[in-house]
Amino acid sequence: MKLKYDANGLIPAIAQDAETGQVLMVAWMNQKALDLTRQTGQAHFWSRSRQTMWRKGETSGNVLTVREIWVDCDADTLLLQVEAAGPACHTGETSCFFRKLED
Amino acid sequence: MKLKYDANGLIPAIAQDAETGQVLMVAWMNQKALDLTRQTGQAHFWSRSRQTMWRKGETSGNVLTVREIWVDCDADTLLLQVEAAGPACHTGETSCFFRKLED
Repeated sequence: MKLKYDANGLIPAIAQDAETGQVLMVAWMNQKALDLTRQTGQAHFWSRSRQTMWRKGETSGNVLTVREIWVDCDADTLLLQVEAAGPACHTGETSCFFRKLED
Repeated sequence: MKLKYDANGLIPAIAQDAETGQVLMVAWMNQKALDLTRQTGQAHFWSRSRQTMWRKGETSGNVLTVREIWVDCDADTLLLQVEAAGPACHTGETSCFFRKLED
């Protein structure tokens, strides 16, 4: 199926723990990052701040092994079902979503 | 906490079923959509294609009642824990992520 990348050639990808269902993080992929993810089985993303490709966990060791990739109805968002080797967040939290929006 | 809206004043919001953990959909919010969501307890989004505010389910009846809102570490993505009144996808599927990316 044809994915809809945005004007910058990027598509958001949600990483969800395949076992627990916990949403771990959201990052962005370009076509190359998606290709690398599928070829290697490990999540690769495009860093918008650093403008570079990164393999999640390349420094921390906390790689994401991708079991399945799902696409939404309008083909502009990806959902990765993953196994996480460790905390997904750079803060050491399991998930990047560790804060509630205060009232 | 200060949210990081993108250059268009938007932030992506993931809706996750609070009971099952299923990721239902991803849509975009501006500040007003977030305010309306918090005020009403029902998910509101900004439609990028129609350039208008919409209350999810306003025509289908399949509203999303928001239990909790979580923010990620860099404050540029929201995670809504919701109760879905019906299928979240306009196709009638429970989740917009009903297709696997083919090999």
